[in-house]
Amino acid sequence: MHQHYSSRILEEAVEAFATLPGIGRKTALRLVLHLLKQEDKEVERFGNTILRMKSEIKTCASCHNISDTEVCQICSDPYRDKRTICVVESIRDVMSIENTQQYTGIYHVLGGIISPMDGIGPADLNIHTLEEKVRSGQCGEIILALSTTMEGDTTNFYIYRRLKEYQVEITTLARGVAIGDDLEYADEVTLGRSIVNRTSFADTFKKIE
Amino acid sequence: MHQHYSSRILEEAVEAFATLPGIGRKTALRLVLHLLKQEDKEVERFGNTILRMKSEIKTCASCHNISDTEVCQICSDPYRDKRTICVVESIRDVMSIENTQQYTGIYHVLGGIISPMDGIGPADLNIHTLEEKVRSGQCGEIILALSTTMEGDTTNFYIYRRLKEYQVEITTLARGVAIGDDLEYADEVTLGRSIVNRTSFADTFKKIE
Repeated sequence: MHQHYSSRILEEAVEAFATLPGIGRKTALRLVLHLLKQEDKEVERFGNTILRMKSEIKTCASCHNISDTEVCQICSDPYRDKRTICVVESIRDVMSIENTQQYTGIYHVLGGIISPMDGIGPADLNIHTLEEKVRSGQCGEIILALSTTMEGDTTNFYIYRRLKEYQVEITTLARGVAIGDDLEYADEVTLGRSIVNRTSFADTFKKIE
Repeated sequence: MHQHYSSRILEEAVEAFATLPGIGRKTALRLVLHLLKQEDKEVERFGNTILRMKSEIKTCASCHNISDTEVCQICSDPYRDKRTICVVESIRDVMSIENTQQYTGIYHVLGGIISPMDGIGPADLNIHTLEEKVRSGQCGEIILALSTTMEGDTTNFYIYRRLKEYQVEITTLARGVAIGDDLEYADEVTLGRSIVNRTSFADTFKKIE
């Protein structure tokens, strides 16, 4: 049904917000009306942030993470272990792992995963630059940290095959029952794998200490 | 918990989106990352629309509806009955009523309702300009179309008392069981009122024809 907007610009603003994922026209209208009620300065800052975002945010020349500088904070941090590279699908995964405060290596953002359904092949991802890093010998361990979907597994396997000829250790995230989860509610595949790949209790204990 | 953003501008953009109602930081991040993936031109248009919105959208000098022009499309439409004024809380209500395509009068947007809890009194609303219209004799009927909340009823009553000395008919929206609703599920107050205020079947039928 056609909405009656009494302002053409209002309509344009609603359309703009409605292009965002998960935001329908009703929510878009609510957001726009909220913005209209804010101070001029506030709204100006909002608009300008969006304009600056696209023009000023760069991609790290080394790891393809987003960055305000040529090389990102993580890659240029002298305290990070440059020989350990964690391969992730997207910048969001970088944030998730950083939030754990458990990782001191650097990252390599693929920018997606191999997905023939969506027409994404290896050439569309940042795999070449990863291979370059490994070939140059600057890297001791590659941690494959992609999602455990079919696409993630395919991509893991593809990268593994491309890198296995080099002198580099290739590891992957530990899979198992989540901490705090009831065994009863764990899915069979995860539970099954966590039994097969059971770890020494003493080892786990030592690592936490 | 503090999120690790690798870009200051990204963080600013997320903060900006997170100020919108119903949008938390997680959703804000998703929206910003979505925008980052879009074409430069698309994002520029988005930002510019927001900037233009605040500077170009006006308030109709007559009915306080939002408008691109000094007087809004509805108030300046020669086919609309200028003697019938529907009093609503917000521009969103104007849209709702316009969507019904059943109303040919004009509107008066109060810009809120009386709500002592939120510190909103009659002086904060566009009641003075409504009284002016009525006093000048340009108006034959005032339709009070506020929500049926305590605040809505208070505001209705306040306006009624201010206008009843003038030569103007004051009406309000019909309340009753919604069309298509099962009686079984109608709330008692609505059902009770719809019995007390029952209407002539023949009249209803005539009005639809």
